[in-house]
Amino acid sequence: MPQRQVINASVSPKGSLETLSQREVQQLSAAGSGSIYTLFRQCALAILNTGAHVDNAKTILDAYHDFEVRIHQQDRGVRLELLNAPADAFVDGEMIASTREMLFSALRDIVYTENELDSQRIDLESSQGITDYVFHLLRNARTLRPGVEPKMVVCWGGHSINTEEYKYTKKVGHELGLRKLDICTGCGPGVMKGPMKGATIAHAKQRMSGGRYLGLTEPGIIAAEAPNPIVNELVILPDIEKRLEAFVRVGHGIIIFPGGAGTAEEFLYLLGILMHPDNRELPFPVILTGPKSAAPYLEQLNAFVLATLGEAAQKHYQIIIDNPAEVARQMTEGLKTVKQFRRERNDAFHFNWLLKIDEGFQRPFDPTHENMANLQLNHALAPHELAANLRRAFSGIVAGNVKDQGIRLIEQKGPYSIHGDPAIMQPLDQLLKAFVEQHRMKLPGGAAYVPCYRVVS
Amino acid sequence: MPQRQVINASVSPKGSLETLSQREVQQLSAAGSGSIYTLFRQCALAILNTGAHVDNAKTILDAYHDFEVRIHQQDRGVRLELLNAPADAFVDGEMIASTREMLFSALRDIVYTENELDSQRIDLESSQGITDYVFHLLRNARTLRPGVEPKMVVCWGGHSINTEEYKYTKKVGHELGLRKLDICTGCGPGVMKGPMKGATIAHAKQRMSGGRYLGLTEPGIIAAEAPNPIVNELVILPDIEKRLEAFVRVGHGIIIFPGGAGTAEEFLYLLGILMHPDNRELPFPVILTGPKSAAPYLEQLNAFVLATLGEAAQKHYQIIIDNPAEVARQMTEGLKTVKQFRRERNDAFHFNWLLKIDEGFQRPFDPTHENMANLQLNHALAPHELAANLRRAFSGIVAGNVKDQGIRLIEQKGPYSIHGDPAIMQPLDQLLKAFVEQHRMKLPGGAAYVPCYRVVS
Amino acid sequence: MPQRQVINASVSPKGSLETLSQREVQQLSAAGSGSIYTLFRQCALAILNTGAHVDNAKTILDAYHDFEVRIHQQDRGVRLELLNAPADAFVDGEMIASTREMLFSALRDIVYTENELDSQRIDLESSQGITDYVFHLLRNARTLRPGVEPKMVVCWGGHSINTEEYKYTKKVGHELGLRKLDICTGCGPGVMKGPMKGATIAHAKQRMSGGRYLGLTEPGIIAAEAPNPIVNELVILPDIEKRLEAFVRVGHGIIIFPGGAGTAEEFLYLLGILMHPDNRELPFPVILTGPKSAAPYLEQLNAFVLATLGEAAQKHYQIIIDNPAEVARQMTEGLKTVKQFRRERNDAFHFNWLLKIDEGFQRPFDPTHENMANLQLNHALAPHELAANLRRAFSGIVAGNVKDQGIRLIEQKGPYSIHGDPAIMQPLDQLLKAFVEQHRMKLPGGAAYVPCYRVVS
Amino acid sequence: MPQRQVINASVSPKGSLETLSQREVQQLSAAGSGSIYTLFRQCALAILNTGAHVDNAKTILDAYHDFEVRIHQQDRGVRLELLNAPADAFVDGEMIASTREMLFSALRDIVYTENELDSQRIDLESSQGITDYVFHLLRNARTLRPGVEPKMVVCWGGHSINTEEYKYTKKVGHELGLRKLDICTGCGPGVMKGPMKGATIAHAKQRMSGGRYLGLTEPGIIAAEAPNPIVNELVILPDIEKRLEAFVRVGHGIIIFPGGAGTAEEFLYLLGILMHPDNRELPFPVILTGPKSAAPYLEQLNAFVLATLGEAAQKHYQIIIDNPAEVARQMTEGLKTVKQFRRERNDAFHFNWLLKIDEGFQRPFDPTHENMANLQLNHALAPHELAANLRRAFSGIVAGNVKDQGIRLIEQKGPYSIHGDPAIMQPLDQLLKAFVEQHRMKLPGGAAYVPCYRVVS
Repeated sequence: MPQRQVINASVSPKGSLETLSQREVQQLSAAGSGSIYTLFRQCALAILNTGAHVDNAKTILDAYHDFEVRIHQQDRGVRLELLNAPADAFVDGEMIASTREMLFSALRDIVYTENELDSQRIDLESSQGITDYVFHLLRNARTLRPGVEPKMVVCWGGHSINTEEYKYTKKVGHELGLRKLDICTGCGPGVMKGPMKGATIAHAKQRMSGGRYLGLTEPGIIAAEAPNPIVNELVILPDIEKRLEAFVRVGHGIIIFPGGAGTAEEFLYLLGILMHPDNRELPFPVILTGPKSAAPYLEQLNAFVLATLGEAAQKHYQIIIDNPAEVARQMTEGLKTVKQFRRERNDAFHFNWLLKIDEGFQRPFDPTHENMANLQLNHALAPHELAANLRRAFSGIVAGNVKDQGIRLIEQKGPYSIHGDPAIMQPLDQLLKAFVEQHRMKLPGGAAYVPCYRVVS
Repeated sequence: MPQRQVINASVSPKGSLETLSQREVQQLSAAGSGSIYTLFRQCALAILNTGAHVDNAKTILDAYHDFEVRIHQQDRGVRLELLNAPADAFVDGEMIASTREMLFSALRDIVYTENELDSQRIDLESSQGITDYVFHLLRNARTLRPGVEPKMVVCWGGHSINTEEYKYTKKVGHELGLRKLDICTGCGPGVMKGPMKGATIAHAKQRMSGGRYLGLTEPGIIAAEAPNPIVNELVILPDIEKRLEAFVRVGHGIIIFPGGAGTAEEFLYLLGILMHPDNRELPFPVILTGPKSAAPYLEQLNAFVLATLGEAAQKHYQIIIDNPAEVARQMTEGLKTVKQFRRERNDAFHFNWLLKIDEGFQRPFDPTHENMANLQLNHALAPHELAANLRRAFSGIVAGNVKDQGIRLIEQKGPYSIHGDPAIMQPLDQLLKAFVEQHRMKLPGGAAYVPCYRVVS
Repeated sequence: MPQRQVINASVSPKGSLETLSQREVQQLSAAGSGSIYTLFRQCALAILNTGAHVDNAKTILDAYHDFEVRIHQQDRGVRLELLNAPADAFVDGEMIASTREMLFSALRDIVYTENELDSQRIDLESSQGITDYVFHLLRNARTLRPGVEPKMVVCWGGHSINTEEYKYTKKVGHELGLRKLDICTGCGPGVMKGPMKGATIAHAKQRMSGGRYLGLTEPGIIAAEAPNPIVNELVILPDIEKRLEAFVRVGHGIIIFPGGAGTAEEFLYLLGILMHPDNRELPFPVILTGPKSAAPYLEQLNAFVLATLGEAAQKHYQIIIDNPAEVARQMTEGLKTVKQFRRERNDAFHFNWLLKIDEGFQRPFDPTHENMANLQLNHALAPHELAANLRRAFSGIVAGNVKDQGIRLIEQKGPYSIHGDPAIMQPLDQLLKAFVEQHRMKLPGGAAYVPCYRVVS
Repeated sequence: MPQRQVINASVSPKGSLETLSQREVQQLSAAGSGSIYTLFRQCALAILNTGAHVDNAKTILDAYHDFEVRIHQQDRGVRLELLNAPADAFVDGEMIASTREMLFSALRDIVYTENELDSQRIDLESSQGITDYVFHLLRNARTLRPGVEPKMVVCWGGHSINTEEYKYTKKVGHELGLRKLDICTGCGPGVMKGPMKGATIAHAKQRMSGGRYLGLTEPGIIAAEAPNPIVNELVILPDIEKRLEAFVRVGHGIIIFPGGAGTAEEFLYLLGILMHPDNRELPFPVILTGPKSAAPYLEQLNAFVLATLGEAAQKHYQIIIDNPAEVARQMTEGLKTVKQFRRERNDAFHFNWLLKIDEGFQRPFDPTHENMANLQLNHALAPHELAANLRRAFSGIVAGNVKDQGIRLIEQKGPYSIHGDPAIMQPLDQLLKAFVEQHRMKLPGGAAYVPCYRVVS
């Protein structure tokens, strides 16, 4: 570990936390202990490490083991006191504005999440209740801008891709930005950063101020994928499922770049939803793309979809190899269809109310060894249900790879077992092996990748 | 009544109601019937009559007896359909922007009020809970602007003053505006309009855009005192007490112009609070002012305070006769003290958290004949408690004069009886008689004023 | 004269004079003496009297005979030192922002005018050169906003109209403002103020910030017609003819309210231009309007046009009596035609390049007794040439009534003689007599109006 | 040469050319031929190649030999028609906004330059006249923003530095940007781009919109150093000397990174001015900096200054090795002194009027073989005069290396001879040799560098 530099500081909020009621401040202060505190401290640390290239939650947590964040109440509102905070988050003793913003975004989301649950407003038992909850969280984060035309492009893909792929994501972002589109990602490094960086330059070229670089994350992943410094709106959703729902409700189109298990998880989630009968007529542009060197990867993913979900699934996306401008042009065309559809159906531009998300996709999946072992993976299921279960399988693998809790679980109990129909297990095994071979599942930490799962057909 | 012109129209929201969740829209639609509907319809009608000079709720309600407002749900959000609406609210078929804004302010406040009460967040049983509730309502209306220096001046006084007094309020508003101060009033005609009008011209002269003309009202009074067209922020608090608390928490200083019973009520409310021992050190500039012709009135009010609440009460305000520039200068000085105090005590500029308001001032007073008859009005009470009861007495008189329900009650049961210590009842009786003689309690409707009370010492 | 209050102050520029070269500052300082100084001092005094109701240049000049304005150079730029300035222009020792702006507008226009003439750029010998000059002056004043749709409505009419007529102009301005149109006037009181005042309130109602209240004046008239306080852009053109050209090049439509000789002058100027064969196809909405009581006046003006310029002239305007909303609707319709025409012909929205203005209308007319006596007023002339001469006749009468120099001339040499064809002289005489009878030529000073002309047929 | 893609297009102006008089448009159209056209075409081509990495004017000119730009007049204003323009400047057929802006900046500056010279306003015979001219050009380009605190940092250095040095300039720019400072460079690649790129990211982190990336160039250099795409304000000064004067009048401090002959020229120019006795008390922060690997280079430059201009010269700058944050901190401190000085002396923040620039530095130096041979380079001269001549020597070398005309001259007549005092010529020769050894004078074209000069002592 390099010599770390730390600083103590006191910061006041910017944004929606500037006007709190006394009771709200009390609630926040009370959150200075207990499980919410642990969560908030961890997110705060990740944010203060913005720009640092560490993607293992434990590494950061260990490096700043004596970091503390205290929530103080004063009549005026809330104030944060930081002890032993990473010095890189400050310039001449003053916290960098974006870091301060993100820090209070974290406080806002983590506490608001709790508050909303406490109130009777939110009904997490029903599908619509969950959607309403996601809506409330996004609105409270001031993410929903009424009347703005559809132009939020979600970019999914790996956080530790190679240089060529990274440069390619920048180029695609640049082409999107030249067409004045906004970018939404999972807010870490790699594919989560490249398109934002390219779009930033392109927006500047088009003299477009107010470009949006929206980062959606969740507490379990933020430490491993600290928000990159270009993110200018950060929302921390309470869990993976809410985060995925936020992506598809707030994004108007999705581009999928090369990635590992996490990307496959997102892709399967998306296919599962788009294949739902209720969504048949709903336009939702999806593009898989990468540089020439990534063509085999994309073809393999495409083949995996064919083998497991069938041809019908392939109609929901197109693949474009090594052509950033064409990606941007196709997305622009797709967004026009989205706009017209929403207008005709009188749906909001800022939230995709009409998209049907089956409850199965909304419920958190707890990747215990038992749950992983019990996943139904066979062709007896309807394609969108199979997609849901495949998604869960990948979700577990991601947890075992990069999430604090998942890593500890694997350390204790050994790899997960995944069972299923050989016609599905074989392509799955191949895909996962290819990920390993292509170093898509190696952790930057250094050591060779040890799989956290066993495929049993 | 002149020939009325009506129009049917459909309008979409502007402001915070642009982003509603599906459940919130359902709640709004559901509000299309029942008591909330009656309330909303009445407020909507008052707003659509903005600028009309009618100050009797019944007159408007009768004139547009067939007016209807329907709340429609669509995926996109909420939409209002208006039937037989006053045509003056439209230009070439399109609703005037400020009217649209106010209409949705009413929808927002009336429904939000209900929602908040339903949630478990609000504890109306405790004093702090009520204050928090007022805070939430104001914040939801986007009235609280963090970081802005104290410059919101509340102007209280009559809604049907004479021309000379009206011109004087314009001049005072002009002098306040030249010093870049904002105006907050009860949002109707008379004193509620004059200072805003003067400030508008002065703000334009000072090339200051973003001047605020904040109107605080409540459902029982809005029909009688329709928002004047200069108001650019409208908040409808749920009752008189919340509205009064909003005035003193959001305003940084208060100017009291000549008025009738309503003004006296506000003045006594203010004195009762400022005389509370906990507020001893809290700076709060209060100025009584009027043109030369109003000097006897102001002197009488001053004498009434001396006779009932004593010399200590007089320290909380100053009287300035016929000198608009001096009023503005003194207010500017006072605001500097407020700013310094808040800074030292670390209190917010946008909400006066440190001001102690006794629960007695926060509880709604229901002016039944019985409650009016039971009011304790004697020197055995602490001055701030006596002030509270005197305030209630005036509150009842206002209800009997201009409020829909109060008028009906007086029609049924005859005038209220008010009992008390002669040393208090005599000055009270004199003051009220003077109000009648000075036509401060005559209703513009036309007929001579018939008192809605009897003072019994 | 009431007790005047004066103040000494030093002010720095706002706007285009903030960045001057050293040479430009030297030129300005040098302007601290000589004829430019006299001109600037006079304009400055008028501006500092903004809002005062005096319409005789001499009155103001006499009241502040010891007023001085000194132009100081400093490395940073220019600074004005004011001695014995009217105290009303200041609030607590600081100059009101709009007054400061106008003061530097005057400095800018008066000095820029000189500079431009000195440079070789401007060719005042040719018609196009004069138009270019007007364009440069307006552009330098930042009056030309590219790309903004046609919505600048010029309002002409008397500066000392009666209360009913004044209220009517406010109502028309209000209806124009509700339709989001901007107002341009001669920037003094009466018709020059009413429409701006009405539009200000209407713009606020429509939540439209950035409404423009453009005042075009000239040095000879500014002292008599001090800019009203609503004007938020002030341009001082060098003489009557440049000012008139500025009106018709920058305005997209014109409304003519009742007025006296000055209004007649403007109306004839406009007709003379619109009747020019080259302008046959050019749309230019012109509306004559007034309250019911002004109907006879408007009819008489209409009859005068028929008698002197013929039926063809009447096609260029419409008359609307007592219907502010209809005036605004017709103007809105007319502006649509203007927009379409400019688009088709590829003309700028911000300057009416395609309007042909004959050189005769561009050359200053010096109203000496000799020039007035020599005016050709007979039907041998083409209608647009006759219009030009009638315009000159009225111009002389205005000078004799309200302009410093004109008044002195009449004091010395007695009234002007105006000669011409009886078929023209008789209607002219009738019109002028009617103006006198209707008190449209009486000066507010007090004494009865003594005509400054004799009509000789 | 790679396959070039071309496009034909027609574009309308944005910015100050939107409002032109008819005469001005005629002048522009007339510029469609002759020497101004050649100049404009060349600049336009460079701008359309923004982002391309070619630094030899001839290469671009040859690649697009059939490129044409035509200036069309229409009533509305001016329009440019482009034939065979580089396709990279367009997105889906529409020109990128920044390119369009820069294109019209070029038209504005090249034509305005001519116009100003034609007018009598500009007196290029006097030193103050030249300064006024530079001021007018900058003001016309809307570069001068009154009232903004000193924060424009000029970065000088090579356009073809190595990767390590380039990354270092980005880091310094990042640290400057974190401290909310603006960047001004010569607007090409290398040192002209790195600091802007770093500052862009830092400004985004600090949520600072409106960061300025000012590029100052001149017609002879723009083709070789096409504006990088981050530049958001472009000004084309008429020649090297005006450009250098613009740098030191508009910049508040200067950072010098490693570079070649051009950088040495700029450094000597700066020293010559700062050593002038009149500028003794004038604060002007100058920092030489580079990564560790550039330390020898910086030391050699420092030694050259000592050997030729003496110790006194060294007091005007500090050297900081490999410490971007320290560079930014020192610059921030320096700017505070500048601000205080300007305030005390009442000088503008936006233009350094008080800086004395000797006429010798203002006059263009024509690098003919004769002029180069005649340069006085000996210790008999005052230090600031010697600096002036050394500057001219480097200026000639730059011309011979990268400028169209200079290259052709060297092709015709062989290398320049430079004569002088051995005590000066020896360090000069060493410095130039070191530049060659360090590849600071190699052209990216490819071939080994052939010196365009001979040092003769």
